[in-house]
Order: sequence, then structure tokens, then C-alpha cells
Amino acid sequence: MIKVGIVGFGNLGKAVLSQIKAYGHFKLVCVFSRRDKSLFSENGVKFDDYKNIKNYKGKIDVMILCSGSFSDLEIQSAEVLKDFCTIDSFDTHKKLFSYYNKLETIGIENNTLALVGCGWDPGLFSMMRLLFGGISPKMYQQTFWGNGVSQGHSDAIRRIKGVLDARQYTIPKQVAIDSIKKGETKSFLPREKHLRECFVVAENESERKRIETEIKSMPNYFCDYDTIVHFVSQQELDKKHNKLNHGGKVLASFLSQNKNKSELEFSVNLESNPDFTASVLICFCGAVFKMFSEGKRGAITVFDVPLRYLSFDCFKNQIKNYL
Amino acid sequence: MIKVGIVGFGNLGKAVLSQIKAYGHFKLVCVFSRRDKSLFSENGVKFDDYKNIKNYKGKIDVMILCSGSFSDLEIQSAEVLKDFCTIDSFDTHKKLFSYYNKLETIGIENNTLALVGCGWDPGLFSMMRLLFGGISPKMYQQTFWGNGVSQGHSDAIRRIKGVLDARQYTIPKQVAIDSIKKGETKSFLPREKHLRECFVVAENESERKRIETEIKSMPNYFCDYDTIVHFVSQQELDKKHNKLNHGGKVLASFLSQNKNKSELEFSVNLESNPDFTASVLICFCGAVFKMFSEGKRGAITVFDVPLRYLSFDCFKNQIKNYL
Repeated sequence: MIKVGIVGFGNLGKAVLSQIKAYGHFKLVCVFSRRDKSLFSENGVKFDDYKNIKNYKGKIDVMILCSGSFSDLEIQSAEVLKDFCTIDSFDTHKKLFSYYNKLETIGIENNTLALVGCGWDPGLFSMMRLLFGGISPKMYQQTFWGNGVSQGHSDAIRRIKGVLDARQYTIPKQVAIDSIKKGETKSFLPREKHLRECFVVAENESERKRIETEIKSMPNYFCDYDTIVHFVSQQELDKKHNKLNHGGKVLASFLSQNKNKSELEFSVNLESNPDFTASVLICFCGAVFKMFSEGKRGAITVFDVPLRYLSFDCFKNQIKNYL
Repeated sequence: MIKVGIVGFGNLGKAVLSQIKAYGHFKLVCVFSRRDKSLFSENGVKFDDYKNIKNYKGKIDVMILCSGSFSDLEIQSAEVLKDFCTIDSFDTHKKLFSYYNKLETIGIENNTLALVGCGWDPGLFSMMRLLFGGISPKMYQQTFWGNGVSQGHSDAIRRIKGVLDARQYTIPKQVAIDSIKKGETKSFLPREKHLRECFVVAENESERKRIETEIKSMPNYFCDYDTIVHFVSQQELDKKHNKLNHGGKVLASFLSQNKNKSELEFSVNLESNPDFTASVLICFCGAVFKMFSEGKRGAITVFDVPLRYLSFDCFKNQIKNYL
């Protein structure tokens, strides 16, 4: 049994808590949140305040970090890694490599191991992009996301002054997907591949124009896309936009030296983004434990994990069924 | 530069020879075949007789084995591994695990390393099945092949007495794919998932009935499938059935503890099966070299290779682009 803790109790933390029961080889020791509660138990699950986390040193093999990338995760991972091995689904692509380097140093110094960026993208999609790119130096690749709710983009809107709540849908442009499936290998601007549609609850009707402008001009998140903003009531948002579905695909192709085409596709279609991301985290959690046991220290990405470590079967060397 | 040799010069060996030029970091030292020729060069490529292969010990880092699984490969791999690291695309699923165990012993004894079963299935598809199975213990998975030419099944027909030539198409049954895409998770008999269609050139018209019966009753290959046999002239076979296209997909899904469905799909669509298999072999060849350099001995499968080793970029630690 691998002893794990959950840090953060939002959508993702709750999903990890519910999913982990399906796996036979994990024991959940404690859920840590910052809701300033002292130690208590609920339905057999132990909760404790995040500030007490150091008390569990030596009692937990891997901490599954479930706070949001944008704010908490960067700080918490650096703190938690001083005492525990960690796994997270840090999802700001542009920052991931520097984040990895920072945790590499902390892990080496503190004799721990962190697996970073381990959801479906970054994560599974990163694995596919690397695999596809390795198969041919001439591989053409494009990643599409959606149709689905981007929690990062929804969060970014909620941080705008005067916004009470928001939900952002990322929508792939079919014309771009069709062009690739027809065999075209052009490059796309961000706005040519995806549309962003936002449903926003504003505090005051009079501020709608300012909020819409702030959303559409937000760097990294919206300014490079065609963005549609709808203002709705909290009631309508809660009723019609309460799902956390998502999905996406990596499309790739190349021509051999003899001009024969090979097409590759990896896709996911998810009714619950948190439930699936939680499943990926739990799956790779076993690999963190195993690689730490074998002496690995510092930080790793999904690229460092032999797939054998992802299957509990493979711990028992029963790889036959998958070959 | 990684120094490689090619063993076997059929469809796959020829494809490796043509594809390897696209990769910057391989030097092809020699192609070995059993056509009983002494050393010669052609278009800058050196050829030698397979019986002279031991002369190259220490001069080649990895031998890419390109003989057919059914007959030659099992014998050749055991011989070649005594002096060289090897990689192969051994594709008889049922025998792969015992083949792996046999080469593990030879590799350990002789201080070499073999990567076995490394094409697209077994190979990439095995990786997906293991990855998907790791993500959830409740994962439902099905693999489909085709529409495409199975070289193994075509070879099997050609070994029947009285058959001059043959081509076998594996055709997935759309009704089975549709059932999975609708969310059904039933189990299928082999004949419910695939149809086998054979185009056969017979030496004598009078033997057609016997040949058809022998094909349809062949264990492992045909007896568990609905098989259609057409007899055609050599001319028609050469004209209409001269492509080596293939493809396939791994479909998977599971319900989370909260009953949210996640669907995953990995698919390939290949104009040339040999060209693509060659590309996968060359890609993983770099990993064999790297893992051998790091001290790994014996035999490995695709499950043992961290994806980082598949990208030449990653040798230089430039993983950023794929994250």
C-alpha cells in the first residue's frame, strides 16, 4: 500500500478523494486544506489544516497537490516538497519548464521527488507530442482542446474586479481540424484553431462593457483569440453551466521518404475534467513512489516515467496482457 | 552518431534503409541479408552476407532486426543478440512474452540489450493499452486493426501448398466500433470485431476448394474469424493489391466513481505499414543505445523506455517544446 495525502480540497482534491477508492494499492492518510480547521474525520477520511502538514513527515509517501496552478500551487509545491514527494497537474504550459527546474533543485536538496505537470495536458498530451515527434523528425503536429470548460480561463475571468462568477468554454474550430484531416500541414494562429466563449455574472450591469474589454484584452488567456462574452445571472450560470466536461486531441502526420503518409491521433472526451485528471494523478502517483524507492531524487516529468510503473499489474511483472 | 545495422532485406528492411536518412543521428554501417552475396556497396550503402555478421562486433551499436516473426526472427534475434544490441518488431502477440524472457537470458549472459515487439502493435498500441489500464482499474478497452493488409496473415496463406501468392485484408466491423462509441462495454468474440478478406493466387484451379478450407480452418490466424476467400490471377493481385496500407485504433472508456464517463482513443492510419513500422524502430533504436550506455542489459519492452529517450531533442534536454 502506498500512503498518500491530498493537498487542496477544491474540484480536483474532491475528485482525487472519490476516485482513489477504485484503486487497490493506495491508503489515503489525510486531506490537507486551508479552511483553518483543526484535525477531524468525516466518513472515515481524516482532514487537517494545511499548516500542520509537517507533522505527517515520514507518514505519507506521496502528496497529491490539488491546488490551482495560477496562485497556490507554485508556492505550496515548493513548501511541501521539502518534506514529501509530490505529484501535481501544474498546467500553465509556458511556466512548466521553469517550475520543473525550481522543484528539481528543492527535491535534490531535500532528498525528495516531484512529478510535475501530470494531468491530460500537460501530461498525457505531452507524452503523445514527444512520442510522435520522436517517430519522425518530419512529424507535423497540432493540439486541439474542447469543446469544454477551461477551469484556468474561468478562474482568470473571476479574478477581474466586478465579476462574481464565470465559466469559459474552449471550442476547437472544425475548419482547422478538417484541414489537417485533409492532409494540409499549415501553421495556425491561436484564433484560427480555437474560439473562447465566456458566460459571466457581473456585480453591476453598468460595468459590463469594462469587464468585457478586460476579458478580451487579457494577455496569454484571451487576447490572441476570438472571444465571445455573454452576461448571465448567477441562477442561469448555476443551472446551465454547471458541468466540468472537457476534451481534446493531438493530431499528427508525416510523409515517409517514399511519400507515404502516416496519420496519428490521440483524443480524450471527458464528462468530468476533474475526475479524469484525478485518475491520471493517482495512476502516476504509483510511479513517483516506485521511482523514489529506486533512488530518484529532484523533479521529473511524464517523459521520465517508464510506462511499466503506471500499472499495478507491472509491479507484479504481469505485463503480458498489454503487449 | 549511433551506429546501426539492418538485418533482413524484405519490405521492412528496405523501409528502414530508406527512412533512416531522415534522422540526423544515425550512421548505417551495413545491411545484412542471406542472399549469399559477399561484401558489396550500392548507392553508398554497404551490404554483407548474414553469415559474416560477427565480423562487425564492436563496430555496430544496435542491430535493427527486420526478418519476419513467423520463421526467421526468433532464430536470428537469439543469434545476433550474442554479439550486438538488437531491436525488433516481433509481432506474434501470444509468443511475445516468452520471446522476451528468452532474449532476457541471452542478453544478460552476453552483456547486450534487446528491445522486443517494437512496432505499432505490439509497440505503440501496447503502450496505450498499458497507459489506459493504469489510469483506471475500471478501464474498458478494445483494439481494432485495419482496414489494411496483414503481412503476417498474407505470409501464412502463402505457406499453404499450392498457393503462389496472397494478400489478406483485416477489416474492422463498424458495428462493434459503433457499439463502443455509444458507450457499450461488452466483450466480443474475434469474429464480432474483424472480418478477414483474402485474395489468393492458386497454382491449380482444381485445388481451390482444399486451399480455401485450409485457410478458413488455420488455427490462430483464421479459424476464429469470418473469412472471405477470392481466387485471382497473379496479374490482378499485382495490379489491384500491391499496397501495404494498414491502420488501427485502441478505444477505451471508464466511469468514474461519480459515474462520469471518460473516453480515450489512439489511432493510426498508414499508407505504408513498413514505412511506419520502420520509423518506430528507428525512433526506439536511440532509446536502446541510450539505455545500454546507462548499463541496462538483457531484454526490455516498450514499457521500460522513458519517453524522454525517444526524442533526440531530449538527449539535449530540450523537452520544453513537448510539455
